[in-house]
Amino acid sequence: MERIPILQMGDFLLVTIQVDMHDQLALTLQDDLSERISKTSAHGVLIDISALGMVDSFIGRMIGTISGLSKIMDAETVLVGMQPAVAITLVELGLTLPGVSTALNVERGMQLLQGRVYQQ
Amino acid sequence: MERIPILQMGDFLLVTIQVDMHDQLALTLQDDLSERISKTSAHGVLIDISALGMVDSFIGRMIGTISGLSKIMDAETVLVGMQPAVAITLVELGLTLPGVSTALNVERGMQLLQGRVYQQ
Repeated sequence: MERIPILQMGDFLLVTIQVDMHDQLALTLQDDLSERISKTSAHGVLIDISALGMVDSFIGRMIGTISGLSKIMDAETVLVGMQPAVAITLVELGLTLPGVSTALNVERGMQLLQGRVYQQ
Repeated sequence: MERIPILQMGDFLLVTIQVDMHDQLALTLQDDLSERISKTSAHGVLIDISALGMVDSFIGRMIGTISGLSKIMDAETVLVGMQPAVAITLVELGLTLPGVSTALNVERGMQLLQGRVYQQ
């Protein structure tokens, strides 16, 4: 079965989205991610969307759901690698992604998470 | 154009392969990777294949080429996340991947690279 891999890097989990998401894949990702957060006690989730040249409201909603899910499980979510065109589309779609932090790339996202998590 | 994202994490580059590779995509990845190694002076490349349930000789050869290319540019390559079935297939295909190190997951691959690169 098709799955989006979740990579562990220290206290954080990294998800790279490269393929077109469809309902089943999004659901599987949510299930896998919540299981991994619980198993690894991860404190943060990085979602890399640098491979996506465009997003639709489905992806926007999925990111919101993942963020809410992680929050409940005590993990921060940072969205990284957003292309300029994607940012414009998200704003035009009215998807302001409340509760989701963003960073330019994985390294900065990691720094952001480390600052947040270890300063508490 | 479809592209496989290359993520920078400190001195290393991470490539997660999730989709079926075809000729053009493999060539683009090789081009992008060599450019990124030269631009970032990366010392190591991690190739994550945890999402691949099967490999063929094309992927095997591509990994070999990337490894050779990185070596010339002074970067080590570590292949991570190989599923048991993939390992069996590679051996059956006679692709022993000379010069490519492997590690169970990204974290261990990172440790391996850090050990290698900073001990020199």
